[in-house]
Amino acid sequence: MANWKSNVREVVPYTPGEQPKTKVIKLNTNENPYPPSPLVGKAISNIELDSLRKYPDPGCQSLISALAKYHGFDEENVFVGVGSDDVLAMSFLTFFNSEKPIFFPDITYSFYDVWASLFRIPFETKALDEEFKIIKSDYDMPCGGIVIPNPNAPTGIAEPVSFFEDIVKAHPECVVIIDEAYVDFGSESAMDLVRKYDNVLVVRTFSKSRAMAGNRIGYAIGSKQLIKYLSDCKFSFNSYTMDTITLQAGVASIEDDSYFKEKLDAVISTREWTKVQLKKLGFTFPDSKSNFIFAKHESMEASFIFEELKKRGIYVRYFSKPQRISNYLRISIGTDEEMQVFIDELKMILKGV
Amino acid sequence: MANWKSNVREVVPYTPGEQPKTKVIKLNTNENPYPPSPLVGKAISNIELDSLRKYPDPGCQSLISALAKYHGFDEENVFVGVGSDDVLAMSFLTFFNSEKPIFFPDITYSFYDVWASLFRIPFETKALDEEFKIIKSDYDMPCGGIVIPNPNAPTGIAEPVSFFEDIVKAHPECVVIIDEAYVDFGSESAMDLVRKYDNVLVVRTFSKSRAMAGNRIGYAIGSKQLIKYLSDCKFSFNSYTMDTITLQAGVASIEDDSYFKEKLDAVISTREWTKVQLKKLGFTFPDSKSNFIFAKHESMEASFIFEELKKRGIYVRYFSKPQRISNYLRISIGTDEEMQVFIDELKMILKGV
Repeated sequence: MANWKSNVREVVPYTPGEQPKTKVIKLNTNENPYPPSPLVGKAISNIELDSLRKYPDPGCQSLISALAKYHGFDEENVFVGVGSDDVLAMSFLTFFNSEKPIFFPDITYSFYDVWASLFRIPFETKALDEEFKIIKSDYDMPCGGIVIPNPNAPTGIAEPVSFFEDIVKAHPECVVIIDEAYVDFGSESAMDLVRKYDNVLVVRTFSKSRAMAGNRIGYAIGSKQLIKYLSDCKFSFNSYTMDTITLQAGVASIEDDSYFKEKLDAVISTREWTKVQLKKLGFTFPDSKSNFIFAKHESMEASFIFEELKKRGIYVRYFSKPQRISNYLRISIGTDEEMQVFIDELKMILKGV
Repeated sequence: MANWKSNVREVVPYTPGEQPKTKVIKLNTNENPYPPSPLVGKAISNIELDSLRKYPDPGCQSLISALAKYHGFDEENVFVGVGSDDVLAMSFLTFFNSEKPIFFPDITYSFYDVWASLFRIPFETKALDEEFKIIKSDYDMPCGGIVIPNPNAPTGIAEPVSFFEDIVKAHPECVVIIDEAYVDFGSESAMDLVRKYDNVLVVRTFSKSRAMAGNRIGYAIGSKQLIKYLSDCKFSFNSYTMDTITLQAGVASIEDDSYFKEKLDAVISTREWTKVQLKKLGFTFPDSKSNFIFAKHESMEASFIFEELKKRGIYVRYFSKPQRISNYLRISIGTDEEMQVFIDELKMILKGV
């Protein structure tokens, strides 16, 4: 008689990149190798304990105001959430309600198809070309929505803003989401399109460039209409998602722009150094504008290198599926010291030592 | 041509209880009048800044382990989320997939019907009796699931565990969720039923009894099967929702049990004092086992008292709908001093001063 199980939603859970518990070099989840701004630390230790007994500000006004000012928009152009996963999922739910399929690349962030399935949104993936680039003309037909990361992941390839303007202009019938999780590492933002088109939403995260993956902050910039729809949808079923401490930590990060830019420059320069080293060792890769490099070796298999690195305490990311990327490694950019050790160990592995 | 709006999910957002910005007596959102344990403050200021650059532990192991130990269950019996709203919404999504309707009281927590609509779950509400009590026999028919808060909100009425055991026993065909947001304030928990029945889920929050509404922590205790389904569903679309600081703050709260019990006793004793005062002033109310009292006056209208209190800087909650409760006020329990001021002001209002 115990048949409650027939009504359960049975799914296969996602397996996040490993978080090793021992001391290792962790280049597998695109985390920033530098800590967040010291101002973030100060904001956290200055929290008034008594303030925590109260619900947080559901409107997240302090953080929204800081972001609006930072990007030169009005507060009504900003939406915040618990990491960009939360912002993206909420955007799918709010904007993708057509019977036509939504479009996104076949090799891209792995949660787009998950959210589409979850919310029963029809979708069609568009294959990247031979060099892992997005083929713009594939998106040239009426659809229920479009979502593209720029730079794309795990390839790291960025497109110029004109590329996205063409797409947005061609699709007044739907919302176009540009997922800029990695944009701060040196590519063009599509944020200016928000000033010209009311159907474009730019999504950002504090997890990578702001070194705050542990805090869970994401946000979206869009037309006031878009943000109003998104907020209404969010508030219709969960008012309190951003906690009091996170809101204050987020504001503090925005306030320390010189630290932010200094650490971005450091990551970018380490990335460029790493590219040179990898090339010398016989690796090829698309030109990454993100904080990772998606590389394959001319002769040694990715799965083998992955296992060898792991034995030596260095974690990179390896995707066995799909087939087309199964000979690639996604290598997050660490500190100069970490990347030096990584390159040294790679040399040994390639020599068979 | 700009017809993207036709695909938008248009909804009416929830209006949370007001968070007044000036100094007032806030008895409108069932917050705890005392701060969280000092250990929570210590845990927050001890956060290592560098740890925040990394993703949080998606398994939330530290908090799950502390909760399992505290309640005498295994870790596999515990699920945690961003407030009990998150836990409840995820439970609806995971367990309520029948074509038969789910049941819950007609006067109850206002988000049940919202999540049911969001996830397209058919539902049927069961009217409370004349004294606002749940009529057990109304739930005596096969259904897609049941969710009942105990104590119920906004009435504050609690039922004994035997009441819920009868319901659970009668429904092997579905999952029964008991929402114990207010249980710590003096009613029987149904947690022991989890040891006997694999289809019962008990949901709790840190927002009320643990004075941590600002942190957003909720959890569920259920059979290992139930928790596995719930975790799989959660991990299938969002791995990182609980942030690093919140996890540590939650553990610290659990560790300070003497503080927790001391403050619970204080709230309960203030509630009992308030009941006596309200009765003297001509109010009637169901016997509340929560941290609020749901009261109406013998002659003066609730909406009038609500507005008068507000003018005097005292916020209580007033629901104009449904009609049946539109002459009631929901009064959260504050400190002794706050409740004394509240009672004094009420006396003046009733005298027309």
